[in-house]
Amino acid sequence: MAGSTFGTHFKVTTWGESHGKGIGVVVDGCPAGLPLAASDIQGYLDRRKPGQSRFSTQRKEDDAVEILSGVFEGKSTGTPISLMVQNKDQRSRDYGDIASYYRPGHADYTFDMKYGFRDYRGGGRSSGRETIGRVAGGAIACKLLKTLGISFLTYARAIGPVSIQSSPEELLHGDLAGIQQQILSNPLYMPEEAPAVQAQDFLASCMERQDSAGGVVECMITGVPAGIGEPVFDKLDANLAKAIFSIGAVKGFEIGDGFATAASTGRSNNDALGSKDGRAAFLSNHAGGILGGISNGAPIVFRAAIKPTPSISATQQTVNTSGDPVEISIRGRHDPIIVPRAVVVVESMAALTLLDLMIGHMASRASSLEQFYRDVR
Amino acid sequence: MAGSTFGTHFKVTTWGESHGKGIGVVVDGCPAGLPLAASDIQGYLDRRKPGQSRFSTQRKEDDAVEILSGVFEGKSTGTPISLMVQNKDQRSRDYGDIASYYRPGHADYTFDMKYGFRDYRGGGRSSGRETIGRVAGGAIACKLLKTLGISFLTYARAIGPVSIQSSPEELLHGDLAGIQQQILSNPLYMPEEAPAVQAQDFLASCMERQDSAGGVVECMITGVPAGIGEPVFDKLDANLAKAIFSIGAVKGFEIGDGFATAASTGRSNNDALGSKDGRAAFLSNHAGGILGGISNGAPIVFRAAIKPTPSISATQQTVNTSGDPVEISIRGRHDPIIVPRAVVVVESMAALTLLDLMIGHMASRASSLEQFYRDVR
Amino acid sequence: MAGSTFGTHFKVTTWGESHGKGIGVVVDGCPAGLPLAASDIQGYLDRRKPGQSRFSTQRKEDDAVEILSGVFEGKSTGTPISLMVQNKDQRSRDYGDIASYYRPGHADYTFDMKYGFRDYRGGGRSSGRETIGRVAGGAIACKLLKTLGISFLTYARAIGPVSIQSSPEELLHGDLAGIQQQILSNPLYMPEEAPAVQAQDFLASCMERQDSAGGVVECMITGVPAGIGEPVFDKLDANLAKAIFSIGAVKGFEIGDGFATAASTGRSNNDALGSKDGRAAFLSNHAGGILGGISNGAPIVFRAAIKPTPSISATQQTVNTSGDPVEISIRGRHDPIIVPRAVVVVESMAALTLLDLMIGHMASRASSLEQFYRDVR
Amino acid sequence: MAGSTFGTHFKVTTWGESHGKGIGVVVDGCPAGLPLAASDIQGYLDRRKPGQSRFSTQRKEDDAVEILSGVFEGKSTGTPISLMVQNKDQRSRDYGDIASYYRPGHADYTFDMKYGFRDYRGGGRSSGRETIGRVAGGAIACKLLKTLGISFLTYARAIGPVSIQSSPEELLHGDLAGIQQQILSNPLYMPEEAPAVQAQDFLASCMERQDSAGGVVECMITGVPAGIGEPVFDKLDANLAKAIFSIGAVKGFEIGDGFATAASTGRSNNDALGSKDGRAAFLSNHAGGILGGISNGAPIVFRAAIKPTPSISATQQTVNTSGDPVEISIRGRHDPIIVPRAVVVVESMAALTLLDLMIGHMASRASSLEQFYRDVR
Repeated sequence: MAGSTFGTHFKVTTWGESHGKGIGVVVDGCPAGLPLAASDIQGYLDRRKPGQSRFSTQRKEDDAVEILSGVFEGKSTGTPISLMVQNKDQRSRDYGDIASYYRPGHADYTFDMKYGFRDYRGGGRSSGRETIGRVAGGAIACKLLKTLGISFLTYARAIGPVSIQSSPEELLHGDLAGIQQQILSNPLYMPEEAPAVQAQDFLASCMERQDSAGGVVECMITGVPAGIGEPVFDKLDANLAKAIFSIGAVKGFEIGDGFATAASTGRSNNDALGSKDGRAAFLSNHAGGILGGISNGAPIVFRAAIKPTPSISATQQTVNTSGDPVEISIRGRHDPIIVPRAVVVVESMAALTLLDLMIGHMASRASSLEQFYRDVR
Repeated sequence: MAGSTFGTHFKVTTWGESHGKGIGVVVDGCPAGLPLAASDIQGYLDRRKPGQSRFSTQRKEDDAVEILSGVFEGKSTGTPISLMVQNKDQRSRDYGDIASYYRPGHADYTFDMKYGFRDYRGGGRSSGRETIGRVAGGAIACKLLKTLGISFLTYARAIGPVSIQSSPEELLHGDLAGIQQQILSNPLYMPEEAPAVQAQDFLASCMERQDSAGGVVECMITGVPAGIGEPVFDKLDANLAKAIFSIGAVKGFEIGDGFATAASTGRSNNDALGSKDGRAAFLSNHAGGILGGISNGAPIVFRAAIKPTPSISATQQTVNTSGDPVEISIRGRHDPIIVPRAVVVVESMAALTLLDLMIGHMASRASSLEQFYRDVR
Repeated sequence: MAGSTFGTHFKVTTWGESHGKGIGVVVDGCPAGLPLAASDIQGYLDRRKPGQSRFSTQRKEDDAVEILSGVFEGKSTGTPISLMVQNKDQRSRDYGDIASYYRPGHADYTFDMKYGFRDYRGGGRSSGRETIGRVAGGAIACKLLKTLGISFLTYARAIGPVSIQSSPEELLHGDLAGIQQQILSNPLYMPEEAPAVQAQDFLASCMERQDSAGGVVECMITGVPAGIGEPVFDKLDANLAKAIFSIGAVKGFEIGDGFATAASTGRSNNDALGSKDGRAAFLSNHAGGILGGISNGAPIVFRAAIKPTPSISATQQTVNTSGDPVEISIRGRHDPIIVPRAVVVVESMAALTLLDLMIGHMASRASSLEQFYRDVR
Repeated sequence: MAGSTFGTHFKVTTWGESHGKGIGVVVDGCPAGLPLAASDIQGYLDRRKPGQSRFSTQRKEDDAVEILSGVFEGKSTGTPISLMVQNKDQRSRDYGDIASYYRPGHADYTFDMKYGFRDYRGGGRSSGRETIGRVAGGAIACKLLKTLGISFLTYARAIGPVSIQSSPEELLHGDLAGIQQQILSNPLYMPEEAPAVQAQDFLASCMERQDSAGGVVECMITGVPAGIGEPVFDKLDANLAKAIFSIGAVKGFEIGDGFATAASTGRSNNDALGSKDGRAAFLSNHAGGILGGISNGAPIVFRAAIKPTPSISATQQTVNTSGDPVEISIRGRHDPIIVPRAVVVVESMAALTLLDLMIGHMASRASSLEQFYRDVR
């Protein structure tokens, strides 16, 4: 079945595999008149580009994006925006062996079971390179959301066992520009200096042991007006959960206090309301900005758990495609951790989800429809 | 926007609110020829029916389901199956006050922000009664999945701070019939006796303190063949995440080792493959049965964190619809915990998700299509 | 597969069969705050109700609609509106024989081929009663469109070989109130008196010969602003074509000059533009109000060809379900023509299609999105 | 809103405009294992390539297709197939003037009304070049349908007032190989020699008069098993109607006897059933192969009316973007008729529609699902 399209109103369709000619995305439903240049997108792609630190695969790709359609005289036309990045550094020889066996923790076995065979070069469609299309589309969503007053702060909360100390609330009330700079100043995208250093040590020791690590990405979205999301299946948090869980390697998702709410009680978990600048405002944010699937005006806060990279050079036990047990050691160029590169992917998927629901929200009231068509005439 | 439909192939559309005439669901895309009677569905609805223990709202509803269409001579016809449950015990007077203020932890404020007003009786569409439609649809999905060899084991892993001791693996290798019986023998649907008793004590003390509790629901699905799920956006885990997160009160979702994988490493988190009965088989199940978004043949294991019921009779601070601070104490008939009643809702949403992707998987190979149409002629 | 839902933004899901408990529709995506009562819908249903003239089946149904959800204190709440009509006069005995053979022109054979069996009572889901859900949903769409300044004029252009004389243009420039009254004053919904009389004579002679007749329904929509429809697959005319062709018995659809354009030339078929009230305006309307799939501000004009009712009491040749040739004569209560009753169905489907695209159009420009969210804050 | 995706199971998303970098399509949901090469697709694109006769635009494009993803070792992988054709001969200077006024019969005015501005070069997204993506996707659908025993015969039934003489039935019972050859032997794709010659004379005289012509495309699909299509909104004929009407310039669509059924009667329009090779078979085909929206095993026969090319060099009256009346004469390279080039577009859209519903049909019976998953294990 088809499964490469995400979104209802602002829709992205991604294509491409690790060692094919390139990776791309078609963005359909982008409103007309948004100023847009390749450089708007390139900045986001650069955040996930490989080879930028010793904690990332050494594959050399500049991941330069090309706009193939949908932009005229510097503005989106309202028709599909087709974006493409060419694959440059495909060293398929690294993957010759992989054809014959199933790598633990990878999708090799499941692809074979599903399709009867697979493009074994670099993971084919299950490669992390597939996320290029998401980030390219997400960059456009972010640009549009920015014009609506919405900002993202996304970073690594934890790398393996090393975690930052500040709560989301503390970060939000801190010096946001400084935090943003701190995030970009270390290869792990952590918003605090000490854990960032400690985490790098931890990663170095993982690599020595031919091992890999996981972590937690946290995302905070500010400026979202109350009312976004639909009350039943298309809840804002439900759609975010799908969006984030559709990123390979994500094994957990939680919003606000998340799993901690299970051991909490109503008295401490409920967010009381007060009045601020003549409007209702929540006095705490255990809910993470969403009630009944609909944004409540408070910052949206969620976390994703990301598993350790399955590609490790340590010896592993598996079977070959004939079902015989074999021992393997994965060579090639792999990330010892994908958390830092996943940060911008998480942000992109969140932006796509939010924008999609914000467009959908425009018709929630008959009066909005009447107002719009009165203005049109 | 529309948001009351779930699924692509096996599609449910739910309708109804707490104090309207009833609650219903239209199940579209159910294959023809499935034997189906109201009693097949009633059993599932009874598992979420209110008033069955002192830990559940005392609202009296028999929640008797009626099949309005789509079944002829005891079998599904292939056309939409319309199911309805009438609301019987609507005591709207309990909710008179609610119109004027926003209950903390509820969707009152967000509905008003979205739609400009709301059906304030019993939460309207954001009421837990909305899940009746999901469970009715899920019951049909479960019946069909059973014919495909698939079983569910769903229960409360934790009630507040009280958790069961066995791991999912241990439960799966235990006496399943006995566990199933243990689950049904206590009002909290816990699969171990001691924590079930301890949790009831904990809940009783919560109620005394005019407080409420949360917990964790765990679901295990066995018999799922490898190959189910789509590799990019419609990953089996992504669709499960959305399905489960679309249930009100869910604040976290994780699969397999979930959040624990973040602090794990590749060496310990990867599931090695071996050979069993001449087939590849995984020697452990940290992944929870899914790799690259596609089932790998191992049991699917996931958990949902459920927040404490927001309705508590303790005094709370909030604002009224004019924005003035008020103190409230919620009367009426409320569940001190919704975890036990959520168990069957979680199972239903998982069944809907899985069946939808299993139907979609039928066309994954050109050879399947050719085989099907060869057989048809 | 599922196929009982129509629309993307304003979505209807219909259910029910001829001799089941009832027929219904769930309308999802209706904006909140629309004043709505059962009487708004009943008026539309009455236009398709059986037994209103000798040219319609004598089945006795009052087709009284009940609103089951989604309306509170007289206004739509933004959540699903569930509507139901109970079947009252199910004389299944009329259909006992039908189980054993395939009626020519009906869907008996194709349902059996698709599903392996069928609900043979009155055509089951392929009965004309299925359109009750469409009309009930269409009534709501019409009410909302009216607040946006949009009106419909729908009528029988031809009954068998008898056609009205005026062109759509002439009707539009005539006395609309008088025409509307003329349409409602004859059982065939024709806008001119002489052909209406002549057509009734023709139908009477058909009935005497145990035969049935077809015709052409024409629909004109005025007040549609320019800009509605999407340029590629979701063209306004493409979506209308699907909507109208999804009504049983429709065998042709054309817009503007339709099939006549095939023999026309560019010089005569192009509509020149001029200026009217300081705006561009088309000086003719060969296009039927749509260019490149998008409304151009002129009235939308389309026609549907409707085949003769397949149920005739004359002897017909067919086969039974074992494949043996049999001769049959269809008894029971049948319409000698369905064109008059199809008029309101055509209008309803057109309304659903148009409203859906009008909601979608709200986000066509980035500036609209910005304006909306500026107003919200 | 998004509107560039067609299909539910076999899904195409097209992108690109006349004078951008290229035109493309992403085909998602193609089953794995289909042998596929660029040459399979190129043959279809060549049938719509410009400049192949004097009755087609003289723009020089080789329209060479490139497969960017989704094919590995000569077979589809089950993941998205991305196809692209580069634009080579973009002479934008031809279109400088067009920016300032609205061409009659084109989408210039409606695009401006919708989006606030437009890519005026060659019609931008409303250009006929947009159909390249449809044909590329359709070629893949046709290849898959061929393995299922399904064939297409598509041709021009009429060019302006010149029509072929044979009925669809006569053509189907004729020498199909000879007819196929006759179609390809004349630049108008007509299946009879005399009208093809006459039509060329007619077109030559149109061109002399600076005028353009329309026509009728007819398509016959053989080998479709009974049972394809869904009974309510996703009727096979409804989806075909949308598919064909989504092609620019189509103004009418009819199936089987189409508009002629309106003046027919039940006695003559019903297709009687008989027995053939031990199976039920229809003795005539007024229905065009579809009953109740579901294929009945007889050939599917439909027609599309195509309007005259709106671009003519004769002087025309219109307004400029400021609303002032102007007289224009359209220069540049235009087709005096698009019917011949539309033939393969109609066939492609029909193939996409049919394949989509054939995939959907696989799950119509519970027994099929059970059989499939029994085979899988």
